[in-house]
Amino acid sequence: MADGKASSLLKPLPMKGGDGTYSYSKNSTYQREGLMVTKEAVNEAISKLLDISNTSNTIRIADLGCSTGPNTYIAVQNIIEAVQKKHALKGLSTTEFQVFFNDLPTNDFNTLYASLPPENQYFTAGVPGSFHSRLFPESSIDIMHASYALCWLSQVPIEVENKQSPAWNRGKIFYSTSSDEVAEAYAAQFAKDVNNFLNARAKEIVVGGLLLPVIPAIPQGFHRSKTAIGFTFDAIGSVLMDMANDGIISEAQVDSFNLPYYITTPDEMVNLVERNGCFSIEMMKTPDPFVFKNQPINAKENNSHLRAAFEWLIAEHFGSSVVDQLFERIDQNEGFYSKLDASYSKVLLLLALKRKGQN
Amino acid sequence: MADGKASSLLKPLPMKGGDGTYSYSKNSTYQREGLMVTKEAVNEAISKLLDISNTSNTIRIADLGCSTGPNTYIAVQNIIEAVQKKHALKGLSTTEFQVFFNDLPTNDFNTLYASLPPENQYFTAGVPGSFHSRLFPESSIDIMHASYALCWLSQVPIEVENKQSPAWNRGKIFYSTSSDEVAEAYAAQFAKDVNNFLNARAKEIVVGGLLLPVIPAIPQGFHRSKTAIGFTFDAIGSVLMDMANDGIISEAQVDSFNLPYYITTPDEMVNLVERNGCFSIEMMKTPDPFVFKNQPINAKENNSHLRAAFEWLIAEHFGSSVVDQLFERIDQNEGFYSKLDASYSKVLLLLALKRKGQN
Repeated sequence: MADGKASSLLKPLPMKGGDGTYSYSKNSTYQREGLMVTKEAVNEAISKLLDISNTSNTIRIADLGCSTGPNTYIAVQNIIEAVQKKHALKGLSTTEFQVFFNDLPTNDFNTLYASLPPENQYFTAGVPGSFHSRLFPESSIDIMHASYALCWLSQVPIEVENKQSPAWNRGKIFYSTSSDEVAEAYAAQFAKDVNNFLNARAKEIVVGGLLLPVIPAIPQGFHRSKTAIGFTFDAIGSVLMDMANDGIISEAQVDSFNLPYYITTPDEMVNLVERNGCFSIEMMKTPDPFVFKNQPINAKENNSHLRAAFEWLIAEHFGSSVVDQLFERIDQNEGFYSKLDASYSKVLLLLALKRKGQN
Repeated sequence: MADGKASSLLKPLPMKGGDGTYSYSKNSTYQREGLMVTKEAVNEAISKLLDISNTSNTIRIADLGCSTGPNTYIAVQNIIEAVQKKHALKGLSTTEFQVFFNDLPTNDFNTLYASLPPENQYFTAGVPGSFHSRLFPESSIDIMHASYALCWLSQVPIEVENKQSPAWNRGKIFYSTSSDEVAEAYAAQFAKDVNNFLNARAKEIVVGGLLLPVIPAIPQGFHRSKTAIGFTFDAIGSVLMDMANDGIISEAQVDSFNLPYYITTPDEMVNLVERNGCFSIEMMKTPDPFVFKNQPINAKENNSHLRAAFEWLIAEHFGSSVVDQLFERIDQNEGFYSKLDASYSKVLLLLALKRKGQN
């Protein structure tokens, strides 16, 4: 549903469409890895928590931030199989499924629809709109999944691009190694976004229905500067600054570019959900952080992956010729990824939230 | 929902996407004209026929064969305003609307979503799939609109491309001036498609819900060879035969190309709906046929319009270089449109069908 914020929300999120070399659909193996980790947790959540006595003849499922596939189809299939397993155990008759695939109107839905699984067992609908506001009618969805979605902010916190503010993020594009003021501005935006998100979902999800967010997080004992994502964003920022020093772009351009992305902690997330009050936390998992010690990173693959997710944003701000040079520089820097060692973390936070009864 | 027929259904229908000179979105004024004619009828149908005591908190509307806009948005807005007017008269509180825009997965949904009205008052969903089969869960839609949709057949009748059949449609691409055998093969395909369509919609529409088809038709007293659409298809066919004579394409290519399109009569439609039995015919309108006597046709506009709707089909069969030559030839033939005189008709058939109670 349109609102005043719509135009500002249209920009931050689109992944690279189509199915070319740097497209999201060909470069989302990390998210897929996350899906495999979460499959078991989703099964468990649905098997233990979903109240199927409550549901109508149709189970409605939504995937928020679906992008162009194919991960969204895998995630949805997991959910459907988990529901079917539960139905079979209870001896319930077959149910119809309707699945809503949501992403911004600028998402490449044509590519998504072109790869619809031919033997899917559900009615398909695409929902173009920002998940930071309402997307569905009241009490119309039974299960919502949102993988790598809530980490995207609705906007860059205003202060970090304001020269007069103590939270000005000079010479950087992310907050992980910035001052506490910058990090706090990001945290405040995240808190606001999560609250709006939960309020919207609370209206849309039936009482007893499930909200299953999966987001990157900072595990216990790690500082915000020690996430793999932050490391990579910092590296992009420093290459951009190198390019500013070489006169290819200006420092002011770097100063006015920040990523609308946030990496939360389990404690912070619990606090935000409890403060919002519409959902109970029924399950929380933080699978062991992947560390890179015994798992050397494939620099080329990681680079392609980054391009798929962030190229659009960078190109919009700096122009597309800058993007090519930027990733070439990263690609040519042999030592770059070797610094991503065991002191860095890469972890997922999986939550199963249940819609409380209406007050 | 996928079924065995899906792949054959994927081809016939896509309008030209994007927003270029020959795009559907820039060349659908005829359909829009139809919309204006139907606005009043839709208002009347909803005001007299829609049982709002039955509806839930959310009214769900579907537009089948939505293409890339903007006509679908106008049609949907008409429906919503009619429902709101009725609600206001009954003193009912505000309702939420969810609107499903359906077309084939190959439709350009990106263009559709890019032109979403900024101030729309409904939750939007796109539904990629063929309306010749199921698209929605059971009893999940209150009002379905389908403008210029049912006229598209799910496939070309097999016989008309079979040399051994008396219904072989040699040297033509449409049935309007072909033998009765060809016309009967088309009619049989249409009957089958309408029956499948009504069976699918009967499952999806709530009891008492409305199905509002708008289709081109042959008015009382006109022969099938005297519709404006048929005239134009015949002209395209004869230009293709000229091109075959000139050696640009082969006659066999023309013989194996037929348009999956049908123009019904009011009597035929009534008969098919009654034979199906799931819907009652509550209203039927055939606004006065537009004749061309006092209304000279804009040849250039008509040509662009044709390209938008049919170019894809022709290009797929003959190759895109043929399309350019074909429309150039039509464009250069000054006398072409002047033959489209008062003996030809252009008429719409508007129906309001109500889902009968389940047996």
